Amino acid sequence: MPRYTAPTKDMQFLLHEVLNVTGQDVPGYDEIEPDFTAAVLEEAGKIASEVLTPLNVVGDTEGCVLENGVVRTPTGFKDAFEQMKEGGWPGLDMPEQYGGQNMPVVIGTAVGEMFSGANQAFTMYQGLTHGAASAILAHGTDQQKDTYLPNMVSCDWTGTMNLTEPHAGTDLGMMRTKAEPQGDGSYKITGQKIFISAGEHDMAENIVHLVLAKITGAPEGIKGVSLFIVPKFLVNEDGSLGARNGVACGKIEEKMGIHGNSTCVMNYDEATGYLLGEEHKGMRAMFTMMNEARLGVGMQGLAQAEVAFQNALDYAKDRLQGRDVTGVKNPDGPADPLIVHPDIRRSLMEQKSFAEGGRAFLLWGATLIDRAHRGKDADADGLISLLTPVIKGFLTDKGYDMTVQAQQVYGGHGYIEEWGMSQFTRDARIAMIYEGANGVQALDLVGRKLAQDGGKHVLAFFDLVKGFIKENEGDEALKADFLDPLKAASKDLQAAGMYFMAEGMKNPNNALSGSYDFMHLFGHVCLGLMWAQMAKAAQAALDGGTSDPDFYETKLATGRFYMKRQLPMTATHLARIQTGAEPVMALDAANF
Amino acid sequence: MPRYTAPTKDMQFLLHEVLNVTGQDVPGYDEIEPDFTAAVLEEAGKIASEVLTPLNVVGDTEGCVLENGVVRTPTGFKDAFEQMKEGGWPGLDMPEQYGGQNMPVVIGTAVGEMFSGANQAFTMYQGLTHGAASAILAHGTDQQKDTYLPNMVSCDWTGTMNLTEPHAGTDLGMMRTKAEPQGDGSYKITGQKIFISAGEHDMAENIVHLVLAKITGAPEGIKGVSLFIVPKFLVNEDGSLGARNGVACGKIEEKMGIHGNSTCVMNYDEATGYLLGEEHKGMRAMFTMMNEARLGVGMQGLAQAEVAFQNALDYAKDRLQGRDVTGVKNPDGPADPLIVHPDIRRSLMEQKSFAEGGRAFLLWGATLIDRAHRGKDADADGLISLLTPVIKGFLTDKGYDMTVQAQQVYGGHGYIEEWGMSQFTRDARIAMIYEGANGVQALDLVGRKLAQDGGKHVLAFFDLVKGFIKENEGDEALKADFLDPLKAASKDLQAAGMYFMAEGMKNPNNALSGSYDFMHLFGHVCLGLMWAQMAKAAQAALDGGTSDPDFYETKLATGRFYMKRQLPMTATHLARIQTGAEPVMALDAANF
Repeated sequence: MPRYTAPTKDMQFLLHEVLNVTGQDVPGYDEIEPDFTAAVLEEAGKIASEVLTPLNVVGDTEGCVLENGVVRTPTGFKDAFEQMKEGGWPGLDMPEQYGGQNMPVVIGTAVGEMFSGANQAFTMYQGLTHGAASAILAHGTDQQKDTYLPNMVSCDWTGTMNLTEPHAGTDLGMMRTKAEPQGDGSYKITGQKIFISAGEHDMAENIVHLVLAKITGAPEGIKGVSLFIVPKFLVNEDGSLGARNGVACGKIEEKMGIHGNSTCVMNYDEATGYLLGEEHKGMRAMFTMMNEARLGVGMQGLAQAEVAFQNALDYAKDRLQGRDVTGVKNPDGPADPLIVHPDIRRSLMEQKSFAEGGRAFLLWGATLIDRAHRGKDADADGLISLLTPVIKGFLTDKGYDMTVQAQQVYGGHGYIEEWGMSQFTRDARIAMIYEGANGVQALDLVGRKLAQDGGKHVLAFFDLVKGFIKENEGDEALKADFLDPLKAASKDLQAAGMYFMAEGMKNPNNALSGSYDFMHLFGHVCLGLMWAQMAKAAQAALDGGTSDPDFYETKLATGRFYMKRQLPMTATHLARIQTGAEPVMALDAANF
Repeated sequence: MPRYTAPTKDMQFLLHEVLNVTGQDVPGYDEIEPDFTAAVLEEAGKIASEVLTPLNVVGDTEGCVLENGVVRTPTGFKDAFEQMKEGGWPGLDMPEQYGGQNMPVVIGTAVGEMFSGANQAFTMYQGLTHGAASAILAHGTDQQKDTYLPNMVSCDWTGTMNLTEPHAGTDLGMMRTKAEPQGDGSYKITGQKIFISAGEHDMAENIVHLVLAKITGAPEGIKGVSLFIVPKFLVNEDGSLGARNGVACGKIEEKMGIHGNSTCVMNYDEATGYLLGEEHKGMRAMFTMMNEARLGVGMQGLAQAEVAFQNALDYAKDRLQGRDVTGVKNPDGPADPLIVHPDIRRSLMEQKSFAEGGRAFLLWGATLIDRAHRGKDADADGLISLLTPVIKGFLTDKGYDMTVQAQQVYGGHGYIEEWGMSQFTRDARIAMIYEGANGVQALDLVGRKLAQDGGKHVLAFFDLVKGFIKENEGDEALKADFLDPLKAASKDLQAAGMYFMAEGMKNPNNALSGSYDFMHLFGHVCLGLMWAQMAKAAQAALDGGTSDPDFYETKLATGRFYMKRQLPMTATHLARIQTGAEPVMALDAANF
């Protein structure tokens, strides 16, 4: 069975030596000192390895079963969910007022990566609850908050997001689910939603569905969409559970992976719903969930890459096959371990440098959220808004690729289910699709985020990169190995942006045809920046006479690999972008 | 349910306008005139669409079941297998002497792509039989040929390849399966083989296992390996079936895909076996199968990409979602079809340009085999030997990527099993692994094939590219759009080869660390060459006043896309290669 070991040491390095959290001017960051975060991460890591990991294969094998309207989760899920609740993990970064522990998002993100890496399907139940609770927190009335949040923060009640309908996926303006006002402030919700993760299950007393629907007489399209709270059981005034609401799971989808999570068709038949936020402004409220969810999905990509890498590494060290061409390494054995072979190394280094670079990117993103929310910093808010599609799209695409590479290390053993590597690939695949397929992320990035606030945030990103390079270019080693490649990659990104500005004006398709390449180009520059920052921190530790030089030397070597072997990809992305729309759009649809 | 439409028109274009088969000086090619190949391809295409396609999902859903030593194939497989046999398809390119139709390999390959695209798991039963028959044909005694071939060519008996053992995959020298001579010319085979495709099933009267084993007292390692024929039922002198042999399926593996094919653990317990070829030269005999199988696997990668593309294209035309930013295209509908969106186009063009370029590459490879075997052309033999790992590695890696992209076009619908897109991805995944994982293909290419016969074959390849460019550079349009990019890509490939020569001498890891990138670089140059040749043929048809200008204009536009958007990847591969071993090998295994 695959193992999962929480990357606690790497997270501590990132939090305290790279991101320097306690030194940041963000409310609450003064409390997350190294000893404290170490304790939290250790504890979370233990749960991930000991409680969630063993259930990962069980979830995949058993899946969820719908019988008489009730969904049975896999054996052991309910007990584990109780353990998570008892430990207070679901409310880690939720307000104390509602029973949470009020920790910063950066801690919630680090812990979230562990849980997702150990068991993605399981962790989604609480992840979606977290997203739904955030939306109520941001847009709910005091009464709504008091009614739902304490139960959702504890995960006694779980939450869902209901957007997609059979004919309306990305294009939510076409949705047909209706909301009829009842005069008492409530609405009757009728319609069908599909692909509802954790839509129905047996681990919570109540399920709070957040449902997009159109109020009778609403404007056409996306501007007529409102968001509603539709609880599975109505809630009495005293907070106790009342009658069953008119919502039911009609079917569980058979999926490629994440079998442990119930993906439901949800049927709403005059279900009682309560408006969340303003009429016809449902998308705004939903985007509170969506943005959080997109970062969470980026995290899933990274998390699956990490766990797959850990197991591929073990296998590469254990499996004896062939001999090192430069000289036998295991003379007493019948063969050398796989890890002696250069192409296996290449694959492992790609995986390792992605996982560590991606983790830095994700945690940096989390600090921007903390800075935006806790520090009311509009610039941080703008920057994370720009980076969100990059985190989601790049980390899930690459995360998936890395699970495929990890599976490949096992040869035929990677293809059979027995070793668990196929599950990582199958589970990771969904992250490229849900919460906005990655093509939609690229569109969001190029079509919306780049130009937001007059392009202010992308300029701020370039300033940040330039500032870091300038500040550190006196360091010869850092300059040659990290700053120069970062500068080159960043220039490619700027050139792509310039191309979009110049050619996108003439024809928006000149920009949109390169949107996917741009998202990846941007992702590489972000990971390049992360590696340059990590290298600086590692060098500082070595210069300071650390007692653990291997860790920091390894960090530097891994970073050099990324800069030399992965970052040059920016040039190809730029070349593709600069061909514009013509080669992409040349064919009539009929001639394909 | 997904559809499959055989790409007959594209194949005819390749055979007769690009490869110009009837004009080639290869025995038997004079018979494969356009009318004849059209008839064969039409018929094969019908079987693919009507018989094999409907069984693809059935095979995936039902899988194979082992009960009391008997493997039950999915519902309908047996009937379809009978239909294939009745049509004589399994022996299409086998000698008439043994009941085959003696057609060239290029026809067998085109037909094989259709069958594989329609149902990979099903087609493997006859594909493996074909490989085993080829090995007997090349290395068997007359008596062995007479005993086994007529029944294998007809697929009354099927065949298997038995290489892998639990501890010995790529490193076959470590195998433990023993062969004890019995004095009567036969051997007793004892041992366990794993991952045996079609190892046991209910569609054939007999199964002819080709098994690698070590004869008692054989030399250590790979030089002590011999190949044996081990039939499931012993064959009496009159050709009738005798006693059950000591071979049995111990288990069927649970796999990520190709569920319709039974992947067996095969236990040999003093099974009677007959030496095929010479003692201790089993690898040579096995490589007759392996080389054929590797081309067949490359074909599978392409075939899955093609069928996935066809369905993604249908979906992109049908599914209404969002509006064209440059102007509404479907004013009477609630939204425009997906295909108006540039990023969907990008994805479809990547899929289309790969499938058509890959098909050209594969069929060209097949003509080289015909030229080598039928025409006794040693140069063609050397060239296809060089290209085999490229065909296998590049077409399966890219083929898989394309199934993932096709799945992505469906959004959430691509992740649920209902639409069938997940199966294409899951089935295509194995092709990167079996018959030598793609890392092993890269090693074979760089470590063996490049330098083979003093580097003669790779030089011949470069001459071929240069010759084509030189011959056609008077054509302005062809030069700018096709020849110049091909020249640039080919220069990158040469530079990589030079780097390997110079730096690989100092340290072989400098070459091996870049082997995977080299395989992909080589693949891109091959597809670039194919597109240049196709463009020339398309332009000739247009200049000649074809009655179907859309087909040829589309061909040119698709080729331009490949040259502009895909071929520039060679620069990044070269950049990676030129970093050598240092970044890849920097870490101690313990420090990962």
